[in-house]
Amino acid sequence: METPDETTAPASTAIAAQDWATASGDPRYRAAVIDLLGALAYGELAAFERLAEDAKLAPTLSDKAELAAMATAEFHHFAQLRDRLSAVDAEPTAAMEPFATPLDDFHRQTAPSDWLEGLVKAYVGDSIASDFYREVAARLDSDTRELVLSVLDDTGHASFAVEKVRAAIEAEPRVGGRLALWARRLMGEALSQAQRVVADRDALSTMLVGGVADGFDLAEVGRMFTRITEAHTKRMAALGLAA
Amino acid sequence: METPDETTAPASTAIAAQDWATASGDPRYRAAVIDLLGALAYGELAAFERLAEDAKLAPTLSDKAELAAMATAEFHHFAQLRDRLSAVDAEPTAAMEPFATPLDDFHRQTAPSDWLEGLVKAYVGDSIASDFYREVAARLDSDTRELVLSVLDDTGHASFAVEKVRAAIEAEPRVGGRLALWARRLMGEALSQAQRVVADRDALSTMLVGGVADGFDLAEVGRMFTRITEAHTKRMAALGLAA
Repeated sequence: METPDETTAPASTAIAAQDWATASGDPRYRAAVIDLLGALAYGELAAFERLAEDAKLAPTLSDKAELAAMATAEFHHFAQLRDRLSAVDAEPTAAMEPFATPLDDFHRQTAPSDWLEGLVKAYVGDSIASDFYREVAARLDSDTRELVLSVLDDTGHASFAVEKVRAAIEAEPRVGGRLALWARRLMGEALSQAQRVVADRDALSTMLVGGVADGFDLAEVGRMFTRITEAHTKRMAALGLAA
Repeated sequence: METPDETTAPASTAIAAQDWATASGDPRYRAAVIDLLGALAYGELAAFERLAEDAKLAPTLSDKAELAAMATAEFHHFAQLRDRLSAVDAEPTAAMEPFATPLDDFHRQTAPSDWLEGLVKAYVGDSIASDFYREVAARLDSDTRELVLSVLDDTGHASFAVEKVRAAIEAEPRVGGRLALWARRLMGEALSQAQRVVADRDALSTMLVGGVADGFDLAEVGRMFTRITEAHTKRMAALGLAA
């Protein structure tokens, strides 16, 4: 794969100023967005499953109900993305399928062993995914951007997880060390699956580093990963964990 | 426990003609309805968990999405019931808790080993629960009746399950024998847990057989169970299974 030269990146296409009808005239852009929506849709469906699974570990009935409510919110996001895929004449299952294996593998390799690990995982995973999609959304056509931002609406999980995890660490400080290691492992697995997706999905990676959408080039992708990692470190500190 | 004499059952209380504000003046009626809503709420939350769990067994992504949609619908039912419990000044968790063990035990003892067993279980379980609550609802005050009937709205699971199970039996008739045994086991376990609930929950069973609500007496409860069992047999026949 050739590395695109920064000086030739068509930063002037101004995709962000276009709507979907105009922007999707470029078949490379269209394919990239369908990839992106497919990945996001499968991610939401997997998040639904993960939260429903974590609900079983909940120590109280009201914690269980909280997690079930969040799972339900993720399902509604999934349904919005699936409906958008259908609306732009993409087959939702076909769009999601390429992302099923890396996401399933990630979840299998990071199955939480208890309630707190589940909370940390959901919090870390949602936050990183959310940071990434927000960065990408800013460079997309206006219709896709609006959809992506709307499904990234906080489902209330973050503050719930932070509160529970902080309380657990206060009650037993040793828990913090174990959860810090866990968060590091999650970040490592997430990055390794993300690399796999980038290697496998030409349309998506061409958009990310090939200048199909606005203003991305290799250097900018590097800066994006730095920003996401820094935000992760700050969140871990807020949780009372050293990242 | 004394068996109430049929001739003394206060069939003339006409609870069904009253609203909650009036009917709940009787503390025995109030306690019985809170029990009923607690049982139903926990049942919906457990149904959410079970369907989300079954979604993992789905053979295709679109089957998975169908089950996740049904789980989400069950969660919304749960939220309605929980909100009603709060609205009538009952603590939702306290109202649900007595039913957690029998329902969890039922689900543990009838964990489906594959996708088809999961579908049959959800279908059989939902149908029996729905028949039971419909029978009871007809005898409740107008406000509680309306709520109970609204959360029994079909979540679309029945036709989905029937279609998939029939197709599987057509493709491989041997499957029918195994699933028929499975359905019989489910019915047996459901009845045994129901008996346990009736024995443990005085308020609820007093309503069912003690004439606190309209028109129930022991003979009528017997007829109700006969109707529910007959409906089950018919549904199994429609599925292509001998009950």
